[in-house]
Amino acid sequence: MAQPSRRALVINDIRRRITSRALVAGDRLPSVRGCAARLGVSPSTVADAYDVLAAEGVIQARRGAGFYVAAKPQPFAVSDTGPQLEREVDPLWVARQSLDSGTDAPKPGCGWLPEDWMPVASLRRAIRALAAAPDAVLTDYGSAKGGAGLRRHISRQLFDQGLACPPDRVLLTGSGSQALDLVCRMLLRPGDTVLVDDPCYFNFQALLRAHQIRIIGVPYTSEGPDLDRFEAVLGEQHPRLYLTNSALHNPTGATISAPVAHRVLSLAAQHDLIVVEDDIFAGFEPELSPRLATLDGLERVVRTGSFSKTLSASLRCGYIAARGDWIEALTDLQVAVNFSGPSPMVADLLHAVLTDGGYRKHLEALRNRLSRCRAEAQARLADLGIRPWVQPRGGFYLWCELPGGADAAVLARAALQEGLVLAPGNVFSVSQSMAPFMRFNVSQMQDSACCRILAELLEAGAGMAAGSQDAV
Amino acid sequence: MAQPSRRALVINDIRRRITSRALVAGDRLPSVRGCAARLGVSPSTVADAYDVLAAEGVIQARRGAGFYVAAKPQPFAVSDTGPQLEREVDPLWVARQSLDSGTDAPKPGCGWLPEDWMPVASLRRAIRALAAAPDAVLTDYGSAKGGAGLRRHISRQLFDQGLACPPDRVLLTGSGSQALDLVCRMLLRPGDTVLVDDPCYFNFQALLRAHQIRIIGVPYTSEGPDLDRFEAVLGEQHPRLYLTNSALHNPTGATISAPVAHRVLSLAAQHDLIVVEDDIFAGFEPELSPRLATLDGLERVVRTGSFSKTLSASLRCGYIAARGDWIEALTDLQVAVNFSGPSPMVADLLHAVLTDGGYRKHLEALRNRLSRCRAEAQARLADLGIRPWVQPRGGFYLWCELPGGADAAVLARAALQEGLVLAPGNVFSVSQSMAPFMRFNVSQMQDSACCRILAELLEAGAGMAAGSQDAV
Repeated sequence: MAQPSRRALVINDIRRRITSRALVAGDRLPSVRGCAARLGVSPSTVADAYDVLAAEGVIQARRGAGFYVAAKPQPFAVSDTGPQLEREVDPLWVARQSLDSGTDAPKPGCGWLPEDWMPVASLRRAIRALAAAPDAVLTDYGSAKGGAGLRRHISRQLFDQGLACPPDRVLLTGSGSQALDLVCRMLLRPGDTVLVDDPCYFNFQALLRAHQIRIIGVPYTSEGPDLDRFEAVLGEQHPRLYLTNSALHNPTGATISAPVAHRVLSLAAQHDLIVVEDDIFAGFEPELSPRLATLDGLERVVRTGSFSKTLSASLRCGYIAARGDWIEALTDLQVAVNFSGPSPMVADLLHAVLTDGGYRKHLEALRNRLSRCRAEAQARLADLGIRPWVQPRGGFYLWCELPGGADAAVLARAALQEGLVLAPGNVFSVSQSMAPFMRFNVSQMQDSACCRILAELLEAGAGMAAGSQDAV
Repeated sequence: MAQPSRRALVINDIRRRITSRALVAGDRLPSVRGCAARLGVSPSTVADAYDVLAAEGVIQARRGAGFYVAAKPQPFAVSDTGPQLEREVDPLWVARQSLDSGTDAPKPGCGWLPEDWMPVASLRRAIRALAAAPDAVLTDYGSAKGGAGLRRHISRQLFDQGLACPPDRVLLTGSGSQALDLVCRMLLRPGDTVLVDDPCYFNFQALLRAHQIRIIGVPYTSEGPDLDRFEAVLGEQHPRLYLTNSALHNPTGATISAPVAHRVLSLAAQHDLIVVEDDIFAGFEPELSPRLATLDGLERVVRTGSFSKTLSASLRCGYIAARGDWIEALTDLQVAVNFSGPSPMVADLLHAVLTDGGYRKHLEALRNRLSRCRAEAQARLADLGIRPWVQPRGGFYLWCELPGGADAAVLARAALQEGLVLAPGNVFSVSQSMAPFMRFNVSQMQDSACCRILAELLEAGAGMAAGSQDAV
């Protein structure tokens, strides 16, 4: 392969000749030797450059007859779709705005940390080491359950939390969401009833709708689900499963207490309810709180998680820890719908960063930084009359009530026009009773523009026309 | 971060002391300074080493009180499950044996090329470059549709094949299988009827079963589906969609002819049938054959594909090209079940290798090598009386009939006991009428053990007790 700089010289020369119409569609390119002589580079450099241009579709190779400028113009440019103002403010609204609004937009509504909070130095080291990994890691499907090293590490982490789950009862999946999706596929049929917290992570609703599930919400208190309502719903509606985050609950930041956890499991046993515990925010806890999976010992609780929040969301990988027979069924299901587990490369990188000696310190630094950040954001929000519903023990969310009965969805729609992505309360609420609430990600509020725009919008009365999203 | 070799010195020292019981569970480790002085390394090296051991669970940090040998023993070792002889020889059987039988087993039944056939040098270059990519590529979720660079490249490839599909009508997915899974989720409901080729890729059946779909097979000829049967089934069963590979059909290696393709589309229009064309083997074609998607212009045809077969299966990523409104619905669905598209890192690596000037040459080299390989495998199989049903134009499959009415499933079960993974005919057949057929992957048959084991098994009469899988 030629030196990149010399190859770039040739590529740019040909591009310029096409742009300036010195070469037009269908023209034969200069011969490799001729071009090499003219630009003072080796023929192999020119051949490489022509291959790159051919791979890009700028020129075409005709067998035995040299290279030609591509006959047709390049058909399309990627249109940057930008914020989609016209869609309904529903669970998918927040996800699509968060993902697609560009990296410059302040996103207090999104569900992740800024990129420079992640362990990038460790990740870059792992990537450099990966360049020398065996061919199989770089090219093969890997095993049906996913990389053994990472499964072993997860098993050990669970063990340290008091949960005995051998590596062969850990299934790696394409993401934390896919872990939940596989569990739903195994356990649910269209028309089944599932219980969620009200409010709950908005994408739980989108996921369950994709499965054509009847969704019932139970009010969430600062110590877990409202037990009276929980018991009543179990008796009346016979839900098949209960889907929740127990530690650092999304969106409220609350944590289930040990007595509530015990009672939830007793009721679950009594009504033959399966519990799916999504433990995606575990790394942010200052100390371990009660876990349904740990109390239950993975009898009727399925535990899922990922490393997207504390390590990297670009390394798409989640996991399921569950009963052995369920893991076998889930593995078959994953083969049917995805052929194999997550990328062996991705599992390898995750394992390298997790077992890098610096990861424990990274988590500690994250927790400390978040504490400071939370205090700052809370003070700035308090100036606007916005107060948290509960004081979270950790994590990056503050679940807040807006002042004066403002409608968070109307405010979010107005904010989007100012380039600010917010997460209004009702996208988290099955009962649609959370109109005055907003979920703030404190790590994404360090840009002063963020609170300034919020203040201006509130001052201008945005969100005050409660109930009418069209009023803005 | 300390030098790896010095850190390893400390790690190995502590491990040895634990193994030899000089340190036991609950013991406090030597202080960082003390250990550093004893081993002649810096205190920061010891601190790093202790962090690695803590991340591995061998020791535990107690805040402000130093490090202790972990109180509990390490609970589990990964058990190598090995070949699962007891399961039924069904579509999932081949997948799980192929994925989990270890890298040393000869796998003429598997669906991929040997690792050293892949463009590993180019991939390693791309990985080294990735180590210097912006933080966002390494840590963010990426956009809901997946990396713009790769979508643009796919759009251009399709354009070169005569299919106008702008980049915003290309959705990247977590794999080629996931592309099909998303399409099924959007278009099908449990109980719907779907038409497949008989034989067809075995995982089509596993996927459709996961969706609780009624599967109807139409006999596949050397020029595409049997048109009389195709028309009759459309009239009688009203299938919602037809799922097929048109170029280098799996498992037969046949290619649809232009008149059959035209007739299939006419019948589809007449009966309002949607066609899903999985084009995963496109890179192996010596020259472009007719495509349903191209003839139809993505009106009622959905095109899916991936880079697993010619670039890397470890870079899990597939794509869907379809009507604009369908792509929007599929993007929402992908957000609901997977939150985002494939890993931005993975999309970045794929794009780098695809636009590396060497990729076109790599494909040409693959095709030439496969031609030679196919001729050799064919000759060796002919010596055993095993002959191909059709002469494929490319790719790595040979669909063959076994001599003397042998039952391929019985033979495959016996072969697995000898460490040989085979793909027997009936796993590909909805009608279960392919018992004497076997799909061979010619690229995986260069190990002489492969044909020797086959010869011995055939000689010993394995597979001759047709109809009884328990006879072995």
